[in-house]
Amino acid sequence: MKRAIYPGTFDPITVGHMDIVRRACTIFDEIVIAVAESRAKKPMFSQAERIAFARAATKDLPKVRVVGFESLLVTLAEELDSNIIIRGLRAVSDFEYELQMGYANASLKKDLETIYLMPSLEHAFVSSSVVRTILHFGGKVDHLLPPQVHRMILEGEKR
Amino acid sequence: MKRAIYPGTFDPITVGHMDIVRRACTIFDEIVIAVAESRAKKPMFSQAERIAFARAATKDLPKVRVVGFESLLVTLAEELDSNIIIRGLRAVSDFEYELQMGYANASLKKDLETIYLMPSLEHAFVSSSVVRTILHFGGKVDHLLPPQVHRMILEGEKR
Amino acid sequence: MKRAIYPGTFDPITVGHMDIVRRACTIFDEIVIAVAESRAKKPMFSQAERIAFARAATKDLPKVRVVGFESLLVTLAEELDSNIIIRGLRAVSDFEYELQMGYANASLKKDLETIYLMPSLEHAFVSSSVVRTILHFGGKVDHLLPPQVHRMILEGEKR
Amino acid sequence: MKRAIYPGTFDPITVGHMDIVRRACTIFDEIVIAVAESRAKKPMFSQAERIAFARAATKDLPKVRVVGFESLLVTLAEELDSNIIIRGLRAVSDFEYELQMGYANASLKKDLETIYLMPSLEHAFVSSSVVRTILHFGGKVDHLLPPQVHRMILEGEKR
Amino acid sequence: MKRAIYPGTFDPITVGHMDIVRRACTIFDEIVIAVAESRAKKPMFSQAERIAFARAATKDLPKVRVVGFESLLVTLAEELDSNIIIRGLRAVSDFEYELQMGYANASLKKDLETIYLMPSLEHAFVSSSVVRTILHFGGKVDHLLPPQVHRMILEGEKR
Amino acid sequence: MKRAIYPGTFDPITVGHMDIVRRACTIFDEIVIAVAESRAKKPMFSQAERIAFARAATKDLPKVRVVGFESLLVTLAEELDSNIIIRGLRAVSDFEYELQMGYANASLKKDLETIYLMPSLEHAFVSSSVVRTILHFGGKVDHLLPPQVHRMILEGEKR
Repeated sequence: MKRAIYPGTFDPITVGHMDIVRRACTIFDEIVIAVAESRAKKPMFSQAERIAFARAATKDLPKVRVVGFESLLVTLAEELDSNIIIRGLRAVSDFEYELQMGYANASLKKDLETIYLMPSLEHAFVSSSVVRTILHFGGKVDHLLPPQVHRMILEGEKR
Repeated sequence: MKRAIYPGTFDPITVGHMDIVRRACTIFDEIVIAVAESRAKKPMFSQAERIAFARAATKDLPKVRVVGFESLLVTLAEELDSNIIIRGLRAVSDFEYELQMGYANASLKKDLETIYLMPSLEHAFVSSSVVRTILHFGGKVDHLLPPQVHRMILEGEKR
Repeated sequence: MKRAIYPGTFDPITVGHMDIVRRACTIFDEIVIAVAESRAKKPMFSQAERIAFARAATKDLPKVRVVGFESLLVTLAEELDSNIIIRGLRAVSDFEYELQMGYANASLKKDLETIYLMPSLEHAFVSSSVVRTILHFGGKVDHLLPPQVHRMILEGEKR
Repeated sequence: MKRAIYPGTFDPITVGHMDIVRRACTIFDEIVIAVAESRAKKPMFSQAERIAFARAATKDLPKVRVVGFESLLVTLAEELDSNIIIRGLRAVSDFEYELQMGYANASLKKDLETIYLMPSLEHAFVSSSVVRTILHFGGKVDHLLPPQVHRMILEGEKR
Repeated sequence: MKRAIYPGTFDPITVGHMDIVRRACTIFDEIVIAVAESRAKKPMFSQAERIAFARAATKDLPKVRVVGFESLLVTLAEELDSNIIIRGLRAVSDFEYELQMGYANASLKKDLETIYLMPSLEHAFVSSSVVRTILHFGGKVDHLLPPQVHRMILEGEKR
Repeated sequence: MKRAIYPGTFDPITVGHMDIVRRACTIFDEIVIAVAESRAKKPMFSQAERIAFARAATKDLPKVRVVGFESLLVTLAEELDSNIIIRGLRAVSDFEYELQMGYANASLKKDLETIYLMPSLEHAFVSSSVVRTILHFGGKVDHLLPPQVHRMILEGEKR
């Protein structure tokens, strides 16, 4: 059985992330979405909220499981007994950062394999940061978020 | 009549920005310099100061108007009844960010057109961030700033 | 009246080029598609064929005119009495090349202005070179070519 | 069973390619190395030689099979009944080209999935083109080639 | 005598920096490692600690001297009577930033020469930011730090 | 004594190359401009012409010597008893190629050091390929070429 980890901040999970998750499901037997605490990035949503969003968005995907983590990726990989990391690649700047992190991780755990997937063209520009900016100004984000997450954020704003 | 919007933080407006403005004046009938609030970026100068700098720097360009804004670019474009956004391109990292923002904006307003202009070679390295760094250490910036802005900053420091 | 030149090899003109042309039509009063001889690139189609393709593809766009050229871009700009060059930007590698050519052209003719437009997301990957590769292997290209051009190429193959 | 295709010109197969192949073996059940004819690239070695090199280099990897092809990748994927394409990523320029080809392929066959793997750091600079340059000048390439391929090339030169 | 300045934040100095220092020693007669205050970057270690790390790491390199600075690089260059700046280049994003800073510095001091060195392949991914992330989570960093610095950080943590 | 090699095709040597040569003269005791045969690139000028151009352009620089070569760079470095290679960096695409070649060379000769210099801003867009394109169409190149080379090319055309 091939288990793969898809780590990130997911602040919040977008249709771009979901695209990567669905592609990963066609290749692997189990996908663990690992939501990083990422305190240093001062996320817009708490880790608990971000986990709840990811769970809601993937509740119909039986191969997917969502966990939180607050450690190095290599520690998480050992805990989850998986050597495969999934990352989405959108832009050149992503690519360079990923390459650097991939080599850093490989220097800590030799058998860790990172595979990169490309979102479909229509989602290539979607990023959590774009979503947060539009949310900040009260703009339209329903085409950028999984419907469940969109609903949860709207309800959160009402309260 | 073709009205174009040149949005940015302009913290402060530089000779590089002025270069783009002058080029845009040869193409469009009216240029609106739109100075974003950009609270998240913690600008060195207040929005009011940045607007005053931009107005002083462009006071001899009759086609140019300066406004502040604190909304999504697409909202501003609707308010100003313009579908044309102008952006300067200096470096590859600019380019990728601009591409992503351009597609995000187009996803919110289909008929929004972003056009990219290149500063002249001698201004290709000038950025507001370079200016702020040199200002911070009291270095020479008169070759990087419009003369009016340079004078206003010197006077501001005296007070 | 603002006349702009859209130069290229157009080997052949694609839906990506057409996207740029249509965008340019909303900004300028006249667009001249200038089809370069480009002998050094050993094009798949002759300059005459490439001009015919571009004319067929734009026959319903009254603002557009198609010419061939075999000179420096700055010479063409003088002949056409236009100072505005339009270029499409898709990728970082495009961008660097364009920047270098833009500065080279500006060194030859100071008032030449290059403006860059971005194709819509769905056409961001389309290039003449992709089309030629697929044509070479007899693959499906009808989603990548203007319908008139597609028809002309099919008819050309029959003969 | 997950079958993945690793297409390329492999002119010749290098230790960098072998690195990608070995990584792919930990993820997939079968890897098909698909050696493109690539006449337009004027390869140094004939397709038959390049296939022989790849077979020799992978003869101890039971999951790996080598085929030649002279068609679009999407046609090959249908013939091999596989929807997974493997590509190695070394540099930004690779990345942009791969992104464009990935989107072009996806436009021809919607369910085709491309996954990108990163060679280990020590092989990050190795390319067939570097090998060909060094071979051309009679330099040392034994650290860049699988030992079987090195031997075959030396023997070929003797003849 | 050729004196060169190697400026940076060095938060902390890594094996990648040491690699650049050693290379610079083969070219120049004296290397001054200049540790910037960099308050805006909120460094993990104080400037005093960072200077101490750099001194410990280079104590066996007689050509190397370590100083702190809190000024523009051009001011430092004048104080140290040197016109040569050394910078390491790892990635494209480094490169663009360096180019911009290089031109900004040259605009302030015409005869300032920046030379770029490339770390050896095995250190190409090492950055202070990678080290800080791993330190934050208590991971293994002994392969990324000069042994003296590693020891000093471990001892600092004990206290 | 520090001897450095500046290798390239120099087809032809430009003011951008001269800029790098002059900078190198402030750092090293001897600069050897090494003009590669580069038959595969089908140069516009013969190796003999290119050597003559480089000699004419540098005849007033006593530290500079021009040689031709037709071997691997590492072989040349051994013959010239120098471990320092100089390369100019203009653009990101240059950078990636240089990095790859630098690592390839280092894999063949461990102590070979490549240092990168940046042309001054006004020459950042100049390349031999831009010069050849303009020459091909009979355009103005006197601002892109050393005066001696310009004269030699004009005289060559007359014959």
